Amino acid sequence: VTAGGPVPALLTALADIVGPANVVTDPDVVAAYAADWTGRFRGTAAAVVRPADTAEVAAVVSLCRTRRAALVPQGGNTGLVGGGVPLHGEVVLSLRRLAGIGPVDEAAGQLTAGAGATIAAVRAAAEAAGWEYGVDLGSRDSATVGGTIGTNAGGLHMLRHGDTRAQVVGVEAVLGTGAVVSHLGGLLKDNTGYALAPLFCGSEGTLAVVTAARLRLVPRPTHRVVALLAFDEVPAAIGAAHALRRALGSLEAAELMLAAGVGLVCETTGAPPPFPGPHAAYLLVEAAAGHDPTEELGDALARLAGVAGEAVAVEPARRRELWNYRESHPPSVNGLGAPHKLDVTLPADAMAAFVAEVPGVVAEVAPEARTWLWGHVADGNIHVNVTGVEPDDERIDDAVFHLVARRGGSISAEHGIGAAKRRWLHLNRSAAELDAFRAIKRALDPDGILNPHVLLPTG
Amino acid sequence: VTAGGPVPALLTALADIVGPANVVTDPDVVAAYAADWTGRFRGTAAAVVRPADTAEVAAVVSLCRTRRAALVPQGGNTGLVGGGVPLHGEVVLSLRRLAGIGPVDEAAGQLTAGAGATIAAVRAAAEAAGWEYGVDLGSRDSATVGGTIGTNAGGLHMLRHGDTRAQVVGVEAVLGTGAVVSHLGGLLKDNTGYALAPLFCGSEGTLAVVTAARLRLVPRPTHRVVALLAFDEVPAAIGAAHALRRALGSLEAAELMLAAGVGLVCETTGAPPPFPGPHAAYLLVEAAAGHDPTEELGDALARLAGVAGEAVAVEPARRRELWNYRESHPPSVNGLGAPHKLDVTLPADAMAAFVAEVPGVVAEVAPEARTWLWGHVADGNIHVNVTGVEPDDERIDDAVFHLVARRGGSISAEHGIGAAKRRWLHLNRSAAELDAFRAIKRALDPDGILNPHVLLPTG
Repeated sequence: VTAGGPVPALLTALADIVGPANVVTDPDVVAAYAADWTGRFRGTAAAVVRPADTAEVAAVVSLCRTRRAALVPQGGNTGLVGGGVPLHGEVVLSLRRLAGIGPVDEAAGQLTAGAGATIAAVRAAAEAAGWEYGVDLGSRDSATVGGTIGTNAGGLHMLRHGDTRAQVVGVEAVLGTGAVVSHLGGLLKDNTGYALAPLFCGSEGTLAVVTAARLRLVPRPTHRVVALLAFDEVPAAIGAAHALRRALGSLEAAELMLAAGVGLVCETTGAPPPFPGPHAAYLLVEAAAGHDPTEELGDALARLAGVAGEAVAVEPARRRELWNYRESHPPSVNGLGAPHKLDVTLPADAMAAFVAEVPGVVAEVAPEARTWLWGHVADGNIHVNVTGVEPDDERIDDAVFHLVARRGGSISAEHGIGAAKRRWLHLNRSAAELDAFRAIKRALDPDGILNPHVLLPTG
Repeated sequence: VTAGGPVPALLTALADIVGPANVVTDPDVVAAYAADWTGRFRGTAAAVVRPADTAEVAAVVSLCRTRRAALVPQGGNTGLVGGGVPLHGEVVLSLRRLAGIGPVDEAAGQLTAGAGATIAAVRAAAEAAGWEYGVDLGSRDSATVGGTIGTNAGGLHMLRHGDTRAQVVGVEAVLGTGAVVSHLGGLLKDNTGYALAPLFCGSEGTLAVVTAARLRLVPRPTHRVVALLAFDEVPAAIGAAHALRRALGSLEAAELMLAAGVGLVCETTGAPPPFPGPHAAYLLVEAAAGHDPTEELGDALARLAGVAGEAVAVEPARRRELWNYRESHPPSVNGLGAPHKLDVTLPADAMAAFVAEVPGVVAEVAPEARTWLWGHVADGNIHVNVTGVEPDDERIDDAVFHLVARRGGSISAEHGIGAAKRRWLHLNRSAAELDAFRAIKRALDPDGILNPHVLLPTG
């Protein structure tokens, strides 16, 4: 690429659309958009384009289609699988300027947010009107509406309110053709053609650039109760999580922990052991409702089998103490050296076997490794953290993903496939499914300019 | 078409796949598949093909693709928009033999059902295991899993549990290419490619023939409370429905009725007026939960504005008496002569205006007509019944659909577009959206053999 060649011509044309100030080419600034926050995925880009609205996004996509220039849509750049950074020299299409949030529709319990609005901003807007947005996650201050749609983020309240797909009533988006499709009316019953919004959720920016979304809100709970339970057998803890999910409509969280993880947390944080003796497994549960769920929770706990210890907390400071055992897991494990992190889902009836098997499977390829497990067990999601190996040691992925697939699980619970997991997607998806995905991709992005190097293996 | 011509050759080849007994050509038998149950939509078919399993469906679709023979997938044939009958001489592909229902997965709260299983059978299987299927509808004994997926049926519990799309965790389906895609593992967190199941929900058999579905179940409520409320202003009743939806997680139904409809019901059924004086509007609400919701409901009712009369029922016989005012609306109105029925959705903040305007809009094109309104107002769905006109008088559709579109509503709440509403789809969907739909259709059904005459206007 030389001066006057195709790239400068493209940049000039982009500047005509978004203004020169919004075509960023300063290498120092571009670098921040070209690498993910973990530093594991690092690419290069000729430019970062920052359109102001849907019309500018459409013009940018149309231009890039004409020039056959690939784009990587990017929100808060908090992804974990290299799906939002220009690993193959793509132009970065930053949606952060589309950060507007409309008023809360009080009757419908909905709001419309731009793709660049952060989850924290959406949550604040909902809360100011007495509602709550059903998705929350640790990266809330940076993660955006568009990014969480691209990955179909689950987050902390998935068990109660469902994934991002369950919140998105409609979207406005620019297809790979440059066409704008907009369906933001927020109607809950509306069978007038194919449902594009759920298709775009989890499509990792490969089908369309979502520019705005109509989001369902949920009533804010007024009462919360937390309980920490101890079990002497892991299967009993898993069974208890499923029993509570069935018994309690108000269940918001059910987090599995194991003896080693709780022991490490006590050691590193100085917290006292939650119960006098050690136990094989722990379950942290939280119920939240518009009425006091303490009695319902108590009744449900009384019906559980195998509970070897129980602590219930209503008062906020004590609730935080109990949550601390769970929330200190990541920092405590990180303290042993950057762990190799995997995010997988198992069928309900395979979780206990997986928990028992995975340390051995890891040890087979990395005898020096140590495996730490915890997670949102009631929705089948478990975090596998491996210490004592390099964070990008693919032997670990390979061994764990094959075990997951054998047990009927998913190699991507909520992080997506991105660049990181393309080579293992065939473990979860048949050739016929991949062909169908590619056909849909060609239908909406016929020239293959939207995030062409993620998700789908080269077919 | 003559003996030995293309149709007999096709029938012979179909018989090779499904067996001669399952290629039905007897005109008397075919006629039952070729007309809908209302008799409004009546076509002809050379044959009805009844495959036994997914492999036979795939072979039938592949064969028909080779022969360029169009297929109409059909379940219980309870549709209301002519979307499941051969209006253009298509071969009828009946899925009724795929009626198997697998065991309830107790930990996950799910089951797998064949496309031909009736909703009643799925509900019975769930109930036998102590669970409930979140979709129910009046046609439950005939309507099938496949048919309700094709139309994305809402039904009686939509307010609480969402539409059919919200229940379908995964599907097995045969694409228009003949390829089988299957993803029935039931994982709730599973971001491994494009979400086909929600795309197929509401696609009216135009993209794929769904052969089986993995369905989410919900816990069975143990307590129910019903309340009938009277209001002297329609907007107050609508506002109350939205306030209750926000206040009560246990709300299962919120049905709006008007003075004229309740008066007609009392006249035709002999039921006493629900309250001493007449009132402009009534709201029937039901709360159901795993705990007793009476107190929560009472608290929420106490906070409503404009309530002019209130009756609360816990005891089953009294609950039925209150429900009778709502459930007697269709038969009472039907007694005035077959009504013209429309099923539309309005935005929450436009419902009151629509209710006020629609009788006048109908009277403009049909001064002799009378308009009756009732519906699931909390999810924006209202039934418009017009008596005193021919049931298929399209002047009514035209006038009401234009009003709906002006108010930001949907011309199809849950019945779908089918053959009946194709000419009005442009009121809800832009040219860009229709182009995107057609591109997706071509991607998954490249030869256009799956239900080619429904949903999408000829482009």
